Amino acid sequence: MSDLKFYYAPMTSADRVHWALEELGVPYEKVKLDLAAGDQRKPEYLALNPNGKVPLLVAEGKPIFEGLAILLYLGERFGVDKGLFPALNADRAEAFKWMAWGSVTLFEATTRLLRNTLERFPAEERNPKVAEGAKQDLTNGIEILDRALEGKEYLVGNQFSLADVSLVTAVPFLARFGVDLSPFANVNAWIAGCTSRPAAKRVRPG
Amino acid sequence: MSDLKFYYAPMTSADRVHWALEELGVPYEKVKLDLAAGDQRKPEYLALNPNGKVPLLVAEGKPIFEGLAILLYLGERFGVDKGLFPALNADRAEAFKWMAWGSVTLFEATTRLLRNTLERFPAEERNPKVAEGAKQDLTNGIEILDRALEGKEYLVGNQFSLADVSLVTAVPFLARFGVDLSPFANVNAWIAGCTSRPAAKRVRPG
Repeated sequence: MSDLKFYYAPMTSADRVHWALEELGVPYEKVKLDLAAGDQRKPEYLALNPNGKVPLLVAEGKPIFEGLAILLYLGERFGVDKGLFPALNADRAEAFKWMAWGSVTLFEATTRLLRNTLERFPAEERNPKVAEGAKQDLTNGIEILDRALEGKEYLVGNQFSLADVSLVTAVPFLARFGVDLSPFANVNAWIAGCTSRPAAKRVRPG
Repeated sequence: MSDLKFYYAPMTSADRVHWALEELGVPYEKVKLDLAAGDQRKPEYLALNPNGKVPLLVAEGKPIFEGLAILLYLGERFGVDKGLFPALNADRAEAFKWMAWGSVTLFEATTRLLRNTLERFPAEERNPKVAEGAKQDLTNGIEILDRALEGKEYLVGNQFSLADVSLVTAVPFLARFGVDLSPFANVNAWIAGCTSRPAAKRVRPG
């Protein structure tokens, strides 16, 4: 019996939580939401996550929303013992730094790019100049990441961790929206290394 | 001697880290940046924080950027012992949830509102319709928060914690940009309770 219940939809930001659960090898129950059918706006789901989004994890009887929060919780509860999350020392701070940077700074610029690019947003609310600015911010961000990965295989303590899972899922995807990742050899090697792991392939078969 | 060096500018998002340091009562060294003079873009600062932003905390000899990451680190390193951060149990998950929600979801909508309102962004990149949408998202967010605070004085375990510091600093400020906070009595009581603390007043005398 597991006390973990994972609410998700495939090909969304829930993927990184899904991947983390597979890496950790802990028992969990999956509940797939049909977003097109509006499952995320049903009263019983809103009672657990009033934001009406995936992912959501119910753990110890309580709902946790926000993918970042779920990853931090899983990392601390299960990851330290399994060598997938750093102990409470300078490496823990390094994990927090990159996980927050990806979920706050990189995410904001990514959302800005998508809201000004994707056709599901009203044409009169999309602005190519804003999209260009977002793309530049993202390119600068990936350059920062590339320098941080110089001489390193993984983000924290040269060991694969949920910090990598948290951030790497946000990067390859940017290429489809015109962010040129080709100059960033360290980032590309890191993406290849992380996404070739069996647990990653179980979540999103390549 | 402290191993904590805090880089900040007053009246910025560094305020919440400043407040947390004051609550914790740990020794730390302050380094004030003059943003108008471009201190944040000087090579010696960029070497510590390549994002060129405040706040930054150097701890255990290593730079931590992202305010959320700094708060998580301070909470775990000092806050648990001092009763200002929950132990690793369901309350820790609750703290992660609200801290991530404020720094990711609420922050994204806040940034969207500011970028479409403030005159320091180019007029041709500001769109009143986008600003309206952001304002609606923020109002919905504050309503979620208001319901979560029903019958509670603080966010987590009915005890003041760095989770409150992390989130409360992002809210009152929204009123100046047209988000009507008056319907949300629980939120207003929570803001009043948190910001009346001596440590809060030391950071931003009221």
